[in-house]
Amino acid sequence: MARSQAGESVLARAARVLAAFGHDSRVLTVAEIARRAALPVPTAHRLVAQLLDVGFLERTEGHGVRVGLHLWEIASLGARALDLREAAMPFLEDIHAATRQHTQLTVLDGTDVLVLEWLRAREALPGLRLHAGRRIPAHAAAAGAVLLAHAEARAQEEVLAGPLTRLSDRTPTDPSDLRGLWAHARRRGYAVCDGFVDARATGIAVPVPGRNARPVAAIGVVVPADEARPMELVPALLAAARGIGRALSIPASPG
Amino acid sequence: MARSQAGESVLARAARVLAAFGHDSRVLTVAEIARRAALPVPTAHRLVAQLLDVGFLERTEGHGVRVGLHLWEIASLGARALDLREAAMPFLEDIHAATRQHTQLTVLDGTDVLVLEWLRAREALPGLRLHAGRRIPAHAAAAGAVLLAHAEARAQEEVLAGPLTRLSDRTPTDPSDLRGLWAHARRRGYAVCDGFVDARATGIAVPVPGRNARPVAAIGVVVPADEARPMELVPALLAAARGIGRALSIPASPG
Repeated sequence: MARSQAGESVLARAARVLAAFGHDSRVLTVAEIARRAALPVPTAHRLVAQLLDVGFLERTEGHGVRVGLHLWEIASLGARALDLREAAMPFLEDIHAATRQHTQLTVLDGTDVLVLEWLRAREALPGLRLHAGRRIPAHAAAAGAVLLAHAEARAQEEVLAGPLTRLSDRTPTDPSDLRGLWAHARRRGYAVCDGFVDARATGIAVPVPGRNARPVAAIGVVVPADEARPMELVPALLAAARGIGRALSIPASPG
Repeated sequence: MARSQAGESVLARAARVLAAFGHDSRVLTVAEIARRAALPVPTAHRLVAQLLDVGFLERTEGHGVRVGLHLWEIASLGARALDLREAAMPFLEDIHAATRQHTQLTVLDGTDVLVLEWLRAREALPGLRLHAGRRIPAHAAAAGAVLLAHAEARAQEEVLAGPLTRLSDRTPTDPSDLRGLWAHARRRGYAVCDGFVDARATGIAVPVPGRNARPVAAIGVVVPADEARPMELVPALLAAARGIGRALSIPASPG
């Protein structure tokens, strides 16, 4: 396999090119990609040309490139995201229709919560930076609390080792506060996080049970903090999470 | 850039490895990947190892690998799919709630229609092989008819050049029939395709208007053929498509 002088593979450098894109930077020039991926401009040019060839990048109408539809198509086969999403979608839609609040499906990935699906509520809190593919530091999210509550000690320690970034005045950044939050979530079976990510928002999350004791995902809603009545929503979320867990344990039909 | 003896780049071979996965083959062994991608097993091994390193593949609990969550995360930034999906989702949800039928968002990609989003109706036609990332030959889909109706002559000719595969007894495979179908869709602004893909199903689609005369996508529903009353659904679809087009022309907020 071809490696650069630094011993990095072509694929590793191509992955850095692709990772240069973000929700605030969906279209980039080659120069911007080179800077963000810390690659020489000629190297970035060559890699971008090859990624365009295989359809992992596309040219935009201007001078930029963006992640290509073909990459999206392959990635939509990502079994974990897809299976979870397929099993969860009917239940998420029910929660969304019943509560008219932002509704999301998330998994723990390292020290972050990764949003797999998000159903936006048009009349609810506007301007929240929520979308599939977004990451939220797990210590700041209600979903993080219910997922870390049941995680291996090693995963918890990795989060506590920080950095425990403060996203709002109310984001917990003290390890003992976080341990308390997780213990509480484990005992109660849900988490309510008031203003941790955004002062206007309360997050409510419950774990989706997996085959063993550990949850495979979390579902939750984000409601306006000033009118949050979480205890009216928790039973519906718990019931939906059980339904999703049951749907996941049924082998998928070949269709 | 490193190239194999055949002059193929590492990235091109890696893309073939990733393209070996499909909706009917979400988990593969390295031997299966080598066979499907027509690569020597040692080459497949090296590429799979590198793709595991960068998170584009993940190991499963058995001896297999599958497309990784990290690839899904990068691909979820694919601007075209994401922008369309975000703009369309509220309208798709309304159609889905109002009709209780399978509802989909599609784009034309070469001679196929690519499904970007699909909302399943639990009580509607069961067993349809519909999911985000699925391709349907454009000549057989209602969405294909409305998209090809407004496509460049070159795109139409590419479809007519075939192969015009027959998916059911009613799939049109005669070029002049297809030209007639497209002319009809252009005049009426919608397409109704009865049994083209599956004898039990009627597809109804309308184009989502773009900035110029060409549609950027199509939306539609799939209903049981024996109870299809398309003309009751077309106005709702047309209104939703206009709403999506309007939402797309509004620059997205940075949030």
